[in-house]
Amino acid sequence: MSKRATRTAISPTRDENYPEWYQQVVRAADLAELSPVRGCMVIKPWGYALWENMQRALDGMFKATGHSNAYFPLFIPLRYLEREAEHVEGFAKECAVVTHHRLEPGAGGGRGAAGEVRGAGGVVPAGKLDEPYVVRPTSETIIGEMYSKWVQSYRDLPILINQWANVVRWELRPRLFLRTAEFLWQEGHTVHATAGEAHEETLRMLGVYADFAENHMAMPVVRGEKSAGERFPGAENTYTIEAMMQDRKALQAGTSHFLGQNFARACNITFSDRDGALAHAWTTSWGVSTRLVGGLIMTHGDDDGVVLPPRLAPQQAVILPIYKDETQRNAVLDFCRGLERRLRDARYADEPLRVAIDDRDLRGGEKNWYHVKRGVPLRIEVGPRDLAAGTVSVARRDQPPRQRAAVAHEQLVADAPALLAAMQDGMLQRARRFLADHSTRVSSLAALEEYFRDDASAGFATAPVSAAAEQDPAYRELLGRLKLSLRCIPDAADTGTCIFGGEAGAPAAVIARAY
Amino acid sequence: MSKRATRTAISPTRDENYPEWYQQVVRAADLAELSPVRGCMVIKPWGYALWENMQRALDGMFKATGHSNAYFPLFIPLRYLEREAEHVEGFAKECAVVTHHRLEPGAGGGRGAAGEVRGAGGVVPAGKLDEPYVVRPTSETIIGEMYSKWVQSYRDLPILINQWANVVRWELRPRLFLRTAEFLWQEGHTVHATAGEAHEETLRMLGVYADFAENHMAMPVVRGEKSAGERFPGAENTYTIEAMMQDRKALQAGTSHFLGQNFARACNITFSDRDGALAHAWTTSWGVSTRLVGGLIMTHGDDDGVVLPPRLAPQQAVILPIYKDETQRNAVLDFCRGLERRLRDARYADEPLRVAIDDRDLRGGEKNWYHVKRGVPLRIEVGPRDLAAGTVSVARRDQPPRQRAAVAHEQLVADAPALLAAMQDGMLQRARRFLADHSTRVSSLAALEEYFRDDASAGFATAPVSAAAEQDPAYRELLGRLKLSLRCIPDAADTGTCIFGGEAGAPAAVIARAY
Repeated sequence: MSKRATRTAISPTRDENYPEWYQQVVRAADLAELSPVRGCMVIKPWGYALWENMQRALDGMFKATGHSNAYFPLFIPLRYLEREAEHVEGFAKECAVVTHHRLEPGAGGGRGAAGEVRGAGGVVPAGKLDEPYVVRPTSETIIGEMYSKWVQSYRDLPILINQWANVVRWELRPRLFLRTAEFLWQEGHTVHATAGEAHEETLRMLGVYADFAENHMAMPVVRGEKSAGERFPGAENTYTIEAMMQDRKALQAGTSHFLGQNFARACNITFSDRDGALAHAWTTSWGVSTRLVGGLIMTHGDDDGVVLPPRLAPQQAVILPIYKDETQRNAVLDFCRGLERRLRDARYADEPLRVAIDDRDLRGGEKNWYHVKRGVPLRIEVGPRDLAAGTVSVARRDQPPRQRAAVAHEQLVADAPALLAAMQDGMLQRARRFLADHSTRVSSLAALEEYFRDDASAGFATAPVSAAAEQDPAYRELLGRLKLSLRCIPDAADTGTCIFGGEAGAPAAVIARAY
Repeated sequence: MSKRATRTAISPTRDENYPEWYQQVVRAADLAELSPVRGCMVIKPWGYALWENMQRALDGMFKATGHSNAYFPLFIPLRYLEREAEHVEGFAKECAVVTHHRLEPGAGGGRGAAGEVRGAGGVVPAGKLDEPYVVRPTSETIIGEMYSKWVQSYRDLPILINQWANVVRWELRPRLFLRTAEFLWQEGHTVHATAGEAHEETLRMLGVYADFAENHMAMPVVRGEKSAGERFPGAENTYTIEAMMQDRKALQAGTSHFLGQNFARACNITFSDRDGALAHAWTTSWGVSTRLVGGLIMTHGDDDGVVLPPRLAPQQAVILPIYKDETQRNAVLDFCRGLERRLRDARYADEPLRVAIDDRDLRGGEKNWYHVKRGVPLRIEVGPRDLAAGTVSVARRDQPPRQRAAVAHEQLVADAPALLAAMQDGMLQRARRFLADHSTRVSSLAALEEYFRDDASAGFATAPVSAAAEQDPAYRELLGRLKLSLRCIPDAADTGTCIFGGEAGAPAAVIARAY
């Protein structure tokens, strides 16, 4: 082991190689791994528990804003996908297509009916479908088909439905959580009688996402509208929350789409209004995915592993009993169980505090680092000497891993909720400072280029960019060369002179490298 | 409207046409509907909320027995499925197969590259896969592949993981919830060092299922082992819980499989034991699905719609305000909001009581029947006269729909939890009596045949059946002719003389018609 590797739990460090650091952190925390199925990951128990906590918080927020959950088919008939021209074009390159509905014994080696390679004597696809099905990359068209049946009158509106589901977008260069062929997400799909209501809904859900990112994930975000070139295929307006990772790249963490009447027309969602006139409805869709887990890791992780915000941590505290023999063991474990109960009852964020005892037969150091790497907010060691002194030894994940404090156990129980709240808030403040420290405003093309070319700590640059710029070859060349993209327009009223074409009144746009 | 139709909310009644009654109940309660995707259903908000409550209760029970959730890929490489011969044979006829990974513009009408029909100018499947993927019908083989990497030593065991997921088993004759091409389920997959531990796990989870069915769904079940001919493809032993629907047919409501070392061998799951010797592990799998929703409906539904057991009802009580003008409205709604809050705080089954106010602009009768059909346990009407009298008008879903009682509102708040508990228990007792009343024991082939041929209320018959009988042509002929199947062997120690082949010591088996 190299000298450096003894100083941090993760090698390489963030500074040494950020992408590789990310892979190693995910592995060390046992969150997920790639599977032998091309581009697909396996979400392991610790990673899934994190996602479950995200789901629970988001689901509560969706229900509090009037939404219900439902479930729609995994498969989309090809002709539905084709109904919206931009939509099918946007997803065509990454669709998994089901063409057969059974298997039958093959005639030996070689190629089967569908032309695929197979082993000697193996089964081959059979029962060809009259029409292929696409495994949903997103569900606007199949859900729209159902909505066209459910909506008749203005009295049927609004429809406010969310779906928790898996989706597939074929991906040959996967990155755990960030970009995988299959991922888990939620997709809200709503229908409204007026453009105004649909627009209000679109922004309401963007607000829910921003609230969740900041107050649960402790991940500050920039909200704004996507430019025309970055919209969801088929949307009139796409709004996004963009977070800054520790390599200062942007991560699109959630999007909310005002679909206008595009999908209502494509799917024939019409209703008779109060005057009896038939009109197309207005729809929205919005989604976040397991990508958020990647965003969480890259916002808070350090060179010793994952750092979990207390509100989402599957375990908020872990108790590590230390003993040498059976007599000590009984006394220590007995105390630990009482402490566990009292901590649980102490509650945090309106729920029982999530605490566990780790009594596995591992060496103390190994066990301690196990929980450091997994990001558990509080590590509480209890040995015979602590028992005698009435104290426990407490380590916080937001402090250096070897830093510990002896705390009277009654005080720990009394203080734990406030301690977790302070950690949660501290993580948000720290991430906010990071975002502010790596953001700048530029008012010329030269300044933009200089920022991203010369400033090793470049993050988000905000500059006036007109709607026309996306068609400008100079814009494309510069963004392509510096690997930049236009992330969003936070406030359309904040304008200046376009740094590309010089048009006046161009809205200030955030430009960054991105995942 | 016919005279009869004015007497019950659902037409036809259960007696008139049970299968059609079922379809109409699902429709009237707005639980689900078929989609244009072959064999696939859409689970609507009320049906999905019911499933969410089932999930929440089951998930808690899985976690209480030491299991964690994780997520594995939707797609299974064909060669993995082939590793276990019985397994692939068992699922080959119902597999959705992915053969292509993108779409490209077609050359016009006619047939595309994969031979499928398509519209003029439409897109067609492209990017043929080297090896087809099967959309998981169940995940033993893909999860086994991962487990083979995770398990090295006895110290890695047991692995106790559950997955909540969608699965696809191609189905051309779907019935909502009971049999659909795609369905939602959970599948537990565990790995153990010894056969004994794996067997214990298999039975533990069968016990969890039986507990859930009886104490949450109020659906009594017969537990037992499946005969060799009815086992899960690849299992050594399959255990089942079988419920009796109101048409006296059996519904297999959950299964738990002892897989022996079959999948460990197929997937190469080996570990070094305490002595350093390499051994194949022992695995189990177990699952329940959205089929349970169908079972719930058919156990408790009546001729007015669904009847929901309070523990699973998305709403346990609904408050229906009645008023004629704005002044009345304000007073009544104000009272309703206070009542809603107090009922919620009254709590039931360790949770806030789930209560809602329905203030939609509908006629009183229509609104009342809406909640009858959806099976809400308590309907509470509040009008100006109730306010004056200090009472509310309470109707219970387990009593005739027009039966109401005036109850002092303080008493309702005080009694509601006990009332719901009594309804939950009453539903279980009633279903238990139904099961007992339609079960019999027979000790001869003639008696079995007579029971199912002549007894219009025939349900479950228990008779000694030897393991050899399944190969007996007389057995097959009789079961085929009377559309019977062997559901399970509740207790291997309960034996007699086989009614088919006359062997002594044959275990008593439950025989019934089944879904």
